[in-house]
Amino acid sequence: MAEITKRSRNGKNRFPRARQGTLRFIPLGGLGEIGKNMFVLEYGDDILVVDCGLMFPDEQMLGIDFVIPDITYLQDNKSRIKGIIITHGHEDHIGALPFVLPKLDVPVYGTRLTMGMVKKKMEDSASGYSPDMREVVTGETVSIGLFSVKFFAVCHSIPDGVGLRIETPLGLVIHTGDIKLDPTPIDGRLTDYAVFTEAGEKGVLLMLSDSTNVERKGFTPSEKIVGATVDNLFRLNRTRRIIIAAFASNLHRVQQVINTAARFNRKIAFLGRSMVANVELAKDLGYLDVDDRMVISPGEAEKLPPNKVVVMTTGSQGEPFSGLVLMSTGQHKHINLGPKDLVAVFATPIPGNERLVSNTINRLFACGCDVVYEKDREIHVSGHASREELKMLLNMVRPKYFVPVHGEYRHLVRHSQLAQEVGIPARDTFVLEKGDVLSITKRQARVQSRVQAGGILVDGIALGELEGSAMSERRDLSEDGMVAISICINQKGSLIAEPMFESKGFIHMEEASVLKSEMTAMVKKVTREFSNKKTYDLDTLKNRLRIGGREVIRKYSTSKPIIIPLVTTITSGQGS
Amino acid sequence: MAEITKRSRNGKNRFPRARQGTLRFIPLGGLGEIGKNMFVLEYGDDILVVDCGLMFPDEQMLGIDFVIPDITYLQDNKSRIKGIIITHGHEDHIGALPFVLPKLDVPVYGTRLTMGMVKKKMEDSASGYSPDMREVVTGETVSIGLFSVKFFAVCHSIPDGVGLRIETPLGLVIHTGDIKLDPTPIDGRLTDYAVFTEAGEKGVLLMLSDSTNVERKGFTPSEKIVGATVDNLFRLNRTRRIIIAAFASNLHRVQQVINTAARFNRKIAFLGRSMVANVELAKDLGYLDVDDRMVISPGEAEKLPPNKVVVMTTGSQGEPFSGLVLMSTGQHKHINLGPKDLVAVFATPIPGNERLVSNTINRLFACGCDVVYEKDREIHVSGHASREELKMLLNMVRPKYFVPVHGEYRHLVRHSQLAQEVGIPARDTFVLEKGDVLSITKRQARVQSRVQAGGILVDGIALGELEGSAMSERRDLSEDGMVAISICINQKGSLIAEPMFESKGFIHMEEASVLKSEMTAMVKKVTREFSNKKTYDLDTLKNRLRIGGREVIRKYSTSKPIIIPLVTTITSGQGS
Repeated sequence: MAEITKRSRNGKNRFPRARQGTLRFIPLGGLGEIGKNMFVLEYGDDILVVDCGLMFPDEQMLGIDFVIPDITYLQDNKSRIKGIIITHGHEDHIGALPFVLPKLDVPVYGTRLTMGMVKKKMEDSASGYSPDMREVVTGETVSIGLFSVKFFAVCHSIPDGVGLRIETPLGLVIHTGDIKLDPTPIDGRLTDYAVFTEAGEKGVLLMLSDSTNVERKGFTPSEKIVGATVDNLFRLNRTRRIIIAAFASNLHRVQQVINTAARFNRKIAFLGRSMVANVELAKDLGYLDVDDRMVISPGEAEKLPPNKVVVMTTGSQGEPFSGLVLMSTGQHKHINLGPKDLVAVFATPIPGNERLVSNTINRLFACGCDVVYEKDREIHVSGHASREELKMLLNMVRPKYFVPVHGEYRHLVRHSQLAQEVGIPARDTFVLEKGDVLSITKRQARVQSRVQAGGILVDGIALGELEGSAMSERRDLSEDGMVAISICINQKGSLIAEPMFESKGFIHMEEASVLKSEMTAMVKKVTREFSNKKTYDLDTLKNRLRIGGREVIRKYSTSKPIIIPLVTTITSGQGS
Repeated sequence: MAEITKRSRNGKNRFPRARQGTLRFIPLGGLGEIGKNMFVLEYGDDILVVDCGLMFPDEQMLGIDFVIPDITYLQDNKSRIKGIIITHGHEDHIGALPFVLPKLDVPVYGTRLTMGMVKKKMEDSASGYSPDMREVVTGETVSIGLFSVKFFAVCHSIPDGVGLRIETPLGLVIHTGDIKLDPTPIDGRLTDYAVFTEAGEKGVLLMLSDSTNVERKGFTPSEKIVGATVDNLFRLNRTRRIIIAAFASNLHRVQQVINTAARFNRKIAFLGRSMVANVELAKDLGYLDVDDRMVISPGEAEKLPPNKVVVMTTGSQGEPFSGLVLMSTGQHKHINLGPKDLVAVFATPIPGNERLVSNTINRLFACGCDVVYEKDREIHVSGHASREELKMLLNMVRPKYFVPVHGEYRHLVRHSQLAQEVGIPARDTFVLEKGDVLSITKRQARVQSRVQAGGILVDGIALGELEGSAMSERRDLSEDGMVAISICINQKGSLIAEPMFESKGFIHMEEASVLKSEMTAMVKKVTREFSNKKTYDLDTLKNRLRIGGREVIRKYSTSKPIIIPLVTTITSGQGS
């Protein structure tokens, strides 16, 4: 399902502005997919953008590092954009900023930790662009163009996340943001139920709600249960060194490990680029409470007695070159694993990462250490609300119109069914796709039109835009490899030297003399037929070589490598 | 973790035969991996082989269809092999037979349905080899060489599966086969507990036990609970057409759908090659009870009223071209899905298939039908025993030596820990890898040596053996694509025509004129420097072109395509 949009300017992004009295909601990403969240709210001349995330590629996008939203619509309407609001610091909400901000050049709004992460992201990108960052406090209301936006607290798997209560000239919009209703959050910062109920009482025109976990029944457990597991682990492994892998952005979990380590009188070392950076940032901004005297370097951790140390590392997803993976392959500069160690992976694999995680665990066992990773050992809880929580939110807000966001198509359908269960009429729930324009007036809401939307594949650190054809070529190359055929002909079309062959990802020609001689014979036959013709064109010749090559190869292999003919025509006189 | 063994005959497979009084257990596959199960039991001159499976490739094995065990050891000791026993008809136990049987030419033993599946497999492979198949009855004891083998009933997710009780001159070996302790099996064929307890009383030298689900606590639920879900589904959707996707080999599940369909007075249509073939085979052999009058064709199913029909199809894993996937994309010849349909996926994704399944479900929703697929709706149970069952088996058998089989490294470690929990000393449990030779005498068991073992990658329908380098080239090609540079030089090394470029999976040269002209300039510079030299060799020239090309590309892209230089030398006179 690789998705690419071309930047054809067919004018369809220039459809008339919303008439007075019309509110438009336009998702540019995050609907029909988990990742690259970004949506537009529009009234009159004013555009408000919420989130600006990236998406990690699926296995069909070979060699692609990540995908960002297509912002053609925003570029075409740049002057009307009043700002970008960021709800929290996860990559699928901030990751596209280094590419998008320099193009749109508008202010960015967010809470303190979120802005800290955005700042770091912009610096790391070396774009040279210095964003206009406007820090807001949770609970604060900010006027952005025609919109009045209240940033309110919601629990999630990263601190300082917010939902949005947006007053528009047409009515109230409630956006949950990425949310769970954790009754015992680590930082004591509860989801602000009062905003939902107050808005519900007042009347909400449109509700946007997190659909990630709509397939899970019941309530998502509190992050605190992971803390209990951490405690148990320390209690049962008093003599062992403990290595803990977790998401670097889950600072609640990092805090819980720090707390337990302090209680058990162990020093802590942080490993992995993003873990070290996030801990540093969170400490500086006051989001992590750790006594500097208990933090040690990885080198020191290796020297201390096992029962005096805990190592907190990246790599819970089996990411290549992460701390845990380097340790598991014996390639870490400082930490050597062995029977004295207990490794605990405090995360479950994100869909698509199962194989990487599984391989890492196998290698950890092969190092001789014990490993804790099983799902039923309460090593992870999600940051997203489950069905019962989602129903409660719907009951509190009771919106006129409901749009499920943050989910694949199946999540959005299930969430709209859930809304119908709690009493929202089917005609007032909207399963939207990227680019759909939901137009809301006093009288009705409907999907009126579409704007350009999709994904820009980013290959490498700089922004590259690859054609869809390049992606499918990579797939073909990866399936069966390729064979290049280089021939030199004179102006009459006669072959003037032996053809050359090179193959990659396929039988090497030098090792397959029969294949090579048959290929050579094929080339000679094709060019001979060809040079007898009065008129010829190179494309036809190349095509004949491709067909001929395929026929020869078919006799020796069931693989179908891509055949790449290169034809050089030598004009007479050059050869001397 | 792509694995390749080369067939170097370094003689190490010719190590001395087991001395009298020594029993050898040698896994050739299925340990350290889920898939391609195959192991060897050896006493004196006699070799017994158990199972002969294939493994589906991981995402690193680009373009590979499947992997089979390396049987060099068996080929080197062919004359000593007395037979191959097949425990049940799953691909990871029978899939390599078409490649292995013609090479070893030994009899195959198995129960009726299993042999039916083997026969079909051999016919489909068109190998022309006609195996010596020896059907056994569950409960029967067969002498194979020095071994006396009892085939006993075990429950699994396919009918007619067996465990093995093998008498050897040194003592009893118990192999669970793929097993679960289903208390209410659909066919009433309970796991034969008596064999385990009788053997346990008598004394078991070696136990081999299924490790697949050792990470799951408790008991694996009975297949019957899926039947209850099927019933409910029919009850709640009386007006809709019902489409059910499931594994074609899970004939118990197929039977339950047939039973419910009959009860609700619906006709049934079977879709998908393997579904149709398995239903046909199982019906012929008496493993499926279905009234022929209720079976209709897919074409008829489309014409009947929705509430009169159920369609049973392949595609529960999102396999390309399977019945369900074709329907979801609107490409199925007969069945068109819409709001009148309810699709139920009665399986959970096998690790690695999550994305395919998820995409299929998204597309089904987009067809307008409702879909049932959530794990917590009891749409699937595993065919493998969980921790409590595994402990019971260990308690019944109480073996002297214990070898966990059928699992990745982590499963094997966890299973050996489980065995220790129930009282088997750590020194008597063995976590083995493919090729390890476990030698057991009256006095002791130990891993004595290794034989050649690994995986043969099969690419296409015929058996191909690709070098590891081809596989890594495919990976490189898939990451960043390739650029071929073709040049013609004369005998002095001077360029005699413009260089030609072709790229795949990378920026197309024709569309990137600046890049092309810089590449051309680079080629001219390299060849000019080169032709000034007195002596030169082509390899150095090619290397220079590769380096030069990389440098040019680096300026325009972070991609690093493979650069493939092809150099044709024109001898003078040819050019005219």
